[in-house]
Amino acid sequence: MRGLLADAQLDAILVTDLNNIRYLTGFTGSNAALLVHVTEERRTLFSTDGRYQTQANTEVPDLEHVLERASAAALLGRAAAEPASYGRVGFESQLVSVDAYSTMTEQAEGVELRRAPGLTEQLRMVKDESEIDALRMASAAADRALADLIEHGGVRAGWTERQVARELENLMLDHGSDGAAFPSIVAAGQYSAIPHHRPTDAVLADGDFVKLDFGAVIDGYHSDVTRMLVIGKPAAWQRDLYSLVLTSQAAGCAASRPGEKVSDVDDAARGVIERAGYGDEFSHGLGHGVGLEVHEAPSLTKTGIGTLSAGMTVTVEPGVYLVGRGGVRIEDTLVVTTEGSEILTLSTKDLMTV
Amino acid sequence: MRGLLADAQLDAILVTDLNNIRYLTGFTGSNAALLVHVTEERRTLFSTDGRYQTQANTEVPDLEHVLERASAAALLGRAAAEPASYGRVGFESQLVSVDAYSTMTEQAEGVELRRAPGLTEQLRMVKDESEIDALRMASAAADRALADLIEHGGVRAGWTERQVARELENLMLDHGSDGAAFPSIVAAGQYSAIPHHRPTDAVLADGDFVKLDFGAVIDGYHSDVTRMLVIGKPAAWQRDLYSLVLTSQAAGCAASRPGEKVSDVDDAARGVIERAGYGDEFSHGLGHGVGLEVHEAPSLTKTGIGTLSAGMTVTVEPGVYLVGRGGVRIEDTLVVTTEGSEILTLSTKDLMTV
Repeated sequence: MRGLLADAQLDAILVTDLNNIRYLTGFTGSNAALLVHVTEERRTLFSTDGRYQTQANTEVPDLEHVLERASAAALLGRAAAEPASYGRVGFESQLVSVDAYSTMTEQAEGVELRRAPGLTEQLRMVKDESEIDALRMASAAADRALADLIEHGGVRAGWTERQVARELENLMLDHGSDGAAFPSIVAAGQYSAIPHHRPTDAVLADGDFVKLDFGAVIDGYHSDVTRMLVIGKPAAWQRDLYSLVLTSQAAGCAASRPGEKVSDVDDAARGVIERAGYGDEFSHGLGHGVGLEVHEAPSLTKTGIGTLSAGMTVTVEPGVYLVGRGGVRIEDTLVVTTEGSEILTLSTKDLMTV
Repeated sequence: MRGLLADAQLDAILVTDLNNIRYLTGFTGSNAALLVHVTEERRTLFSTDGRYQTQANTEVPDLEHVLERASAAALLGRAAAEPASYGRVGFESQLVSVDAYSTMTEQAEGVELRRAPGLTEQLRMVKDESEIDALRMASAAADRALADLIEHGGVRAGWTERQVARELENLMLDHGSDGAAFPSIVAAGQYSAIPHHRPTDAVLADGDFVKLDFGAVIDGYHSDVTRMLVIGKPAAWQRDLYSLVLTSQAAGCAASRPGEKVSDVDDAARGVIERAGYGDEFSHGLGHGVGLEVHEAPSLTKTGIGTLSAGMTVTVEPGVYLVGRGGVRIEDTLVVTTEGSEILTLSTKDLMTV
C-alpha cells in the first residue's frame, strides 16, 4: 500500500471500507477506520469504538488505536493536527458518499483530500497463501455439501426449490461454512433459464434441469460454484446443451493463465458458444474475482481491462439460457498459478442425474 | 414524494437505492433506477435491464420502462434531453459515491443536480396498513420460532451458541420467514454482556444468562426481538437485573406515543436504569425504526431529533451489560398508533428458564 501511495503522490490514505480494513489489518469488527501513512508506521493509525477495544488489541496489535465511535472523523482530526505529515490524504471515492465527503472536508481542514479509488482492491486481487487456503476450504465445504445433498436424496421430484436451497445451506454449515456466500440459487425446469433466479415454492419434476449456484464462507473468504442436475433421464437437447457449455467452460479454464488479458479469457469461452449459434443466449460476463467479497476485481468480461496474474482467484462460469425451456451454467472457482490455473471447486462436472 | 419535491423546489429526483425504489414502485429486482417527476406521471420513468423485463411488467405496470443495464445513466440521459422539464434534479447524496456523482454530472449535462438526501426515507418512516401487516407477520414468525425452540429443548446446557442460532433461524424459515432479518445473536454466560456478540462455539452451561436477538423477514419487512433465558435456576442478581431492564422497557413502550419526542422516549426508559445506578452500563440507544431495512429512521436516542407519529414502527430495547458477568436486553418491535402503541412481538417477557 505504501508503494501505491508513493506512486499516487499521497502522504496517506483514509480507508473506511470494512473489507479493505480487514484485508490491511485483520480487524473483523463492524466499525473502524484506518489511516495508512506513506512511509511511517507510527503515523499509521487505526480507529474503532469502545465495543471493540479488546478485539482490536488482539487483531491489530501493531498500530496505534484511536477509540472513537466516529472513527473516520477522529483520524481526519489527527491528520488535520499534523498537516506537515498528512498534507495530502487520499480517500475511497468509489465508496464515500457525496454527503460524507462534504463532512470530511470540514473535519480535515488544512488537509488536501484527493480521490484515490480502488487502491486496496487492487492489492486484494492477488491472494497470498493463507487467503488461498481459506478459499480452498470454502470451496471444499461447498463441494462436500453438494455431495451430501445428492447422497441424501436432497434433490428430487416433489421437493421445492426453497427446500433444496435450505438443505444445501444447512449442509454447508455442517461442513464448517460460516454462512452462505450469497443467497443460493436453485432453479428448476424453465426457471433454470433465468440466470439469477431466486428459489421459489416451485416443485421439482421429472425431466427438469436443476441449476445449483452456491458457495461457502471460511475466515471471510467466499467460494462460488454452479452445477447442473437432471431429474430422471436427460433428453437429447439437455445433453447437447450441457456438453456445449462444458466445452466452453473448459476453454475458459484453460485460458486462465498468468499474463492473459481478461477479455481474451472471456473470448476463449464465449467463442465456443458463439460458434454454436448461442451467443445471444450467453447474456453475462464469463466470471469475476472472488475473495473477501463474492464479487470483486477482476471482471472477466468482453470489455474488461487488465491481465491475470498468479494468485488471482476468479470464477469461470459460462451459461446458455433458452427462455421458457431451460438453461445451463457451469462454474468453478479457480486460482491462477505461475504455470496456468488450479480449480478449487472439485465437484464432478459430469451431468448428474438423480 | 411529489409534495416533497415541490417543497424542495426540484423538478424531479433520481432514486437509485433499491429499498427506496421498492418502496416507491414495488420493484424487487437487483438493478433499477427511478426518476420521479414533481407533477407529471408520464415524466416519471423507471429503468431496469433486460433480465428483469417480465418482472418489471408485473411489479411496475404503470410507469414507462427504460431497459438499460446502466439504469441511472439512462434516466439522466432522458432528463438531459428535456431540460425544460427536468431542469433541476435531486439525487440521494447520502448514498451516491463521489465517483458516481462525478459520472452523473457528465451524463446529465445541462441538468442542475442537487443534493436531496433522505426524502424517500422520510416517507418510509410512516407505514401503511399493508406494511404493518407484513411487520406483524414477520414478528409472529419470530415469536413462533422462539416458542418452538424452547418447546423442543433447543436452548440447553451442552449446546453451543452457534447450534442454537442455527436452529432458531431454521425455525423462522419453517414459519414462513424469507431468511434471518440479520445474523442472529445468541450470547451465553459472560458473552451476554457483549451487546452485539456473534454466536461462537461456546457451550451453554447451567446458570448462564442466554440472550437471543433475532428477527424474521416477510415480504421484505423485518422484525426485531430480544428475549432472555436462564439455564437452570436464576440467581438473585439475574432476577434483579432482569426486573430492572423489564421496568425500563415497559417505560419505553409506554412513552412510545404519537407526538412524543424520540429523545424523550429514550429518556423515559434510560431514566429507570440511570436511577438504579446502571446508566454507564446501558451503552447504546433505546431503539430504531424497522421496515424494509432492519435499521432505518427514526433513531430513538438521547440526541435523536423529531417526534413519533402514528404508523411508525420502532424497536424499544434497553439493556444493561455487566462486563465479565452477564447482561440483559429486552426488545420489542412496536407500531405507534393514534392512541399510543401496539407491540407486535408477543413472546412472553417473563424471565424464561430452561
